[in-house]
Amino acid sequence: MDIARLSINLATVRKQWNLHDAVEACTRHGITAIDPWRDQVAVVGLTDAVRAIKASGVRVSGYCRGGMFPAASAADRQTAIDDNRRAIDEAAALGAECLVLVVGGLPAHSRDIGEARKMVADGIAAILPHARACSVPLAIEPLHPMYAPDRACVNTVRQALDLCDQLGDGTGVAIDVYHVWWDPEIEAQIARAGGAKRILAYHICDWLVPTRDLLLDRGMMGDGVVDLPRMRAMIEKAGYSGYHEVEIFSAANWWTKPGDEVLKTCIERFKTVC
Amino acid sequence: MDIARLSINLATVRKQWNLHDAVEACTRHGITAIDPWRDQVAVVGLTDAVRAIKASGVRVSGYCRGGMFPAASAADRQTAIDDNRRAIDEAAALGAECLVLVVGGLPAHSRDIGEARKMVADGIAAILPHARACSVPLAIEPLHPMYAPDRACVNTVRQALDLCDQLGDGTGVAIDVYHVWWDPEIEAQIARAGGAKRILAYHICDWLVPTRDLLLDRGMMGDGVVDLPRMRAMIEKAGYSGYHEVEIFSAANWWTKPGDEVLKTCIERFKTVC
Repeated sequence: MDIARLSINLATVRKQWNLHDAVEACTRHGITAIDPWRDQVAVVGLTDAVRAIKASGVRVSGYCRGGMFPAASAADRQTAIDDNRRAIDEAAALGAECLVLVVGGLPAHSRDIGEARKMVADGIAAILPHARACSVPLAIEPLHPMYAPDRACVNTVRQALDLCDQLGDGTGVAIDVYHVWWDPEIEAQIARAGGAKRILAYHICDWLVPTRDLLLDRGMMGDGVVDLPRMRAMIEKAGYSGYHEVEIFSAANWWTKPGDEVLKTCIERFKTVC
Repeated sequence: MDIARLSINLATVRKQWNLHDAVEACTRHGITAIDPWRDQVAVVGLTDAVRAIKASGVRVSGYCRGGMFPAASAADRQTAIDDNRRAIDEAAALGAECLVLVVGGLPAHSRDIGEARKMVADGIAAILPHARACSVPLAIEPLHPMYAPDRACVNTVRQALDLCDQLGDGTGVAIDVYHVWWDPEIEAQIARAGGAKRILAYHICDWLVPTRDLLLDRGMMGDGVVDLPRMRAMIEKAGYSGYHEVEIFSAANWWTKPGDEVLKTCIERFKTVC
């Protein structure tokens, strides 16, 4: 793949660099897009983050993350909605192409995933008018089913697209190979997403065998079992022409290496195996 | 739930007892059904296992396990098919109500999950005539998507039922709450399975938060986030009246406790939270 299509999700280098250093490093490596996390923006302050990003000329392929809607009380659900409105404001200020939503799992002490899913739909519906007014598309990211209880109760592309159909304009999906590569329906659902112009982001990494930690053991492209060219072919066939965003949480490996080595490896693998 | 419906998958006590001791213990605790694993039968020998099980009067709700069909070479795929035919013979000798199939993941060095899924369909088709001749139903068990690469590339009930539709009589599904509880389609697919008389087994345990190991950190019923009464209601509504089989792989917890304590806890939780 052409490096012009590469974006780096800054979680990939979160242990090595703050936002300013990460933007500088990406620029130096010829990378033209990033996806920062809210905590990374907060550390340097939104104003400085916006200034640095605009000055660098780097594009913001997405902003991580909104979501986490389910909560045990109405007050806590409202707190989440208010926080998501602030995330939309930040995404707009940063010029982000979308706000990625990791929708949240079960409320504390709950086993009612149906109710959690309803809270997600209600939460997104509550922030959608503000997102539309700010021209910030909401990218619902289906997360791997192993995250259903504690991170996201939207777990398949089909389910995310059903939610988009229900919610309407201003919503779409973030397709991350890590979460969806196993899905027997993935080809059909990506085609459906493309047909509806709902693919807002495409995230890449790899699934390692064995995987030693449910959250922080994602692999570099090429080191695992995901058929990345097949995934890319599906995405392209569906009409997606946006960034391919590398997002790797890797506590024991990539987070321990020098950031420049991580970026060099991302670029090399992006050119050769994606 | 009534203890008469309880079965113990002997993996739950595999570190504590051999097959003979496990059968004796289950009988002593008033448990009327078990599901032994092939390696547990092999240790004592099939003849002795059959003798002990018949003498105890315990029923065999299933036999674990056949499957593991995908392989890089035709010779290795044939080896798997031959081994599955022996598993069917053993299941028949034990009087097992079904042979549970954990179908296998990607062949070594492969990223082609579509091809692996085809190998699974071909493998089951190859053993099905023998299974029918022996009156041993084949219970295809969809495994959680986190096992797609290395244990089972059949990952949803929908996918397993599609496979049953393709293969025909003598096939069905094993529904294990651990693997399917998160599925947004689970209610509809369990209803579909029941309508087609295809629910051959129902396995219970719980999903812990956090889960510390992808394979060996399953929880006792009641200790996790699965809504077991809801799952039971779906299964019963679908017409299933067979055993509820406890299957817990728990390296750091239940496998370290005395077997009698494990069985007592299974019984108590089965009565109170399932």
